[in-house]
Amino acid sequence: MTNRYKFTIAYNGEKYAGWQRQKDVPSVQQALEEALAKFYPYDQTPQLTAAGRTDAGVHALGQVTHVDLDEFTKPMTPFEIAKGINAHLRPAPISVIHAEIVDDEFHARFGAINKLYRYRILVRPAPPVEERGFVWHMRRPPAETMNIKAMQDGAKHLIGHHDFTTFRDSQCQAKTPMRTLDRLDITSEDNGIYGQMITIEAEGKSFIHHQVRNMVGTLALVGEGKWSPADIKAALEACDRTKGGPTAPAEGLTLMRIDY
Amino acid sequence: MTNRYKFTIAYNGEKYAGWQRQKDVPSVQQALEEALAKFYPYDQTPQLTAAGRTDAGVHALGQVTHVDLDEFTKPMTPFEIAKGINAHLRPAPISVIHAEIVDDEFHARFGAINKLYRYRILVRPAPPVEERGFVWHMRRPPAETMNIKAMQDGAKHLIGHHDFTTFRDSQCQAKTPMRTLDRLDITSEDNGIYGQMITIEAEGKSFIHHQVRNMVGTLALVGEGKWSPADIKAALEACDRTKGGPTAPAEGLTLMRIDY
Repeated sequence: MTNRYKFTIAYNGEKYAGWQRQKDVPSVQQALEEALAKFYPYDQTPQLTAAGRTDAGVHALGQVTHVDLDEFTKPMTPFEIAKGINAHLRPAPISVIHAEIVDDEFHARFGAINKLYRYRILVRPAPPVEERGFVWHMRRPPAETMNIKAMQDGAKHLIGHHDFTTFRDSQCQAKTPMRTLDRLDITSEDNGIYGQMITIEAEGKSFIHHQVRNMVGTLALVGEGKWSPADIKAALEACDRTKGGPTAPAEGLTLMRIDY
Repeated sequence: MTNRYKFTIAYNGEKYAGWQRQKDVPSVQQALEEALAKFYPYDQTPQLTAAGRTDAGVHALGQVTHVDLDEFTKPMTPFEIAKGINAHLRPAPISVIHAEIVDDEFHARFGAINKLYRYRILVRPAPPVEERGFVWHMRRPPAETMNIKAMQDGAKHLIGHHDFTTFRDSQCQAKTPMRTLDRLDITSEDNGIYGQMITIEAEGKSFIHHQVRNMVGTLALVGEGKWSPADIKAALEACDRTKGGPTAPAEGLTLMRIDY
């Protein structure tokens, strides 16, 4: 008998070439599949399907995957399978948070109706310590902060159903640049000498390649005062990648949650 | 001319044998002093004095130090000195957050009137990812949480002026086990499948060796239901280390702030 399992996964993407298995470079998918294969009692390596193929260096706290597994020789609960994978992953910074048996109809990628990404920027002169590797460190002179109100005003132009070509990586293989961005919230905490921590949350059913990082890189120009909020509208309407800002670094991006 | 500088420092203590310089093992103090010596134009290594000597593996986000420096050949602002230290520290997970010139009377250690420590516990079966190295991971079956109300009730017995011998490390060199604990707040976030994150904040003018970790290790027994809140009172009153709970791991502890 075969069961379909849903695994919720967290990982620090720093040392990985992304979610997807590739030749000669370490991927999160490969690490997970190999850990599972170590105690899977059959001669093949189970294949995981993820909701979103995160890029090199991008993190996840709530990636969702599914996999079909034949019954274990000695029956195992979903929790025991997760525990087994985690044991074999150690010390890799990948963790199976939750496991459950789902309906055969469940599909991690095609069934997703909403994804939440978080992007964080730490604005201060000194390098991050606690958040190291999980934020984009914008080195700025002491007390120099980004203009959050302007970033929020700029972000409003991106909400809704648009052609996102301006924020689309040239390698993007999606059939269309049309996407619906349901939410793009920007909040900030000003922690005095500890700097300004900016959190950007983007939600939508799906995103094109590098969309969040390209939107963030462009909004950062607004935060710095190099662009006006209205420049975001003009860039979006140009439908031209060369009219957008730079791609924000991978390390600030985390896939937080997938809804079904 | 000599100036006294106050540096606010953050570090990930994982790879260090603690704040204090020791023979043959890496310390935070040594890393900082050597980074500073690399561009200090005189033939001696400046010596930093810290507010609190954190133990091996303990982190800080707001450690405070002072140091006397002779005038630089080419004058440098406090910010430029901090920047120089940070440049020479890279890639060590130590960061000078802030630097300023202070009065000659300022003393990082003896002038401190209040210290804030944070201790975090992540209760869940899966290993931490984002908070890895900055929490005590209590491996528990899914959905099993700690009793926060009981921990809070237990903590109340520790507030105030007491003989803390029960929570004092045998290596402690303080003259007296008497300390005043001004605050011991315990809060928790229940994040469903992502687990329970418990934050304990302890504030007071000073602490004896391992006091916070020994209090946390003992309160954890209450959270697990092995001890009642009243057992904390009995343990405190026993003034006997063998009547306290185990020492909680270093990695969950962070020195957050020093007030002067």
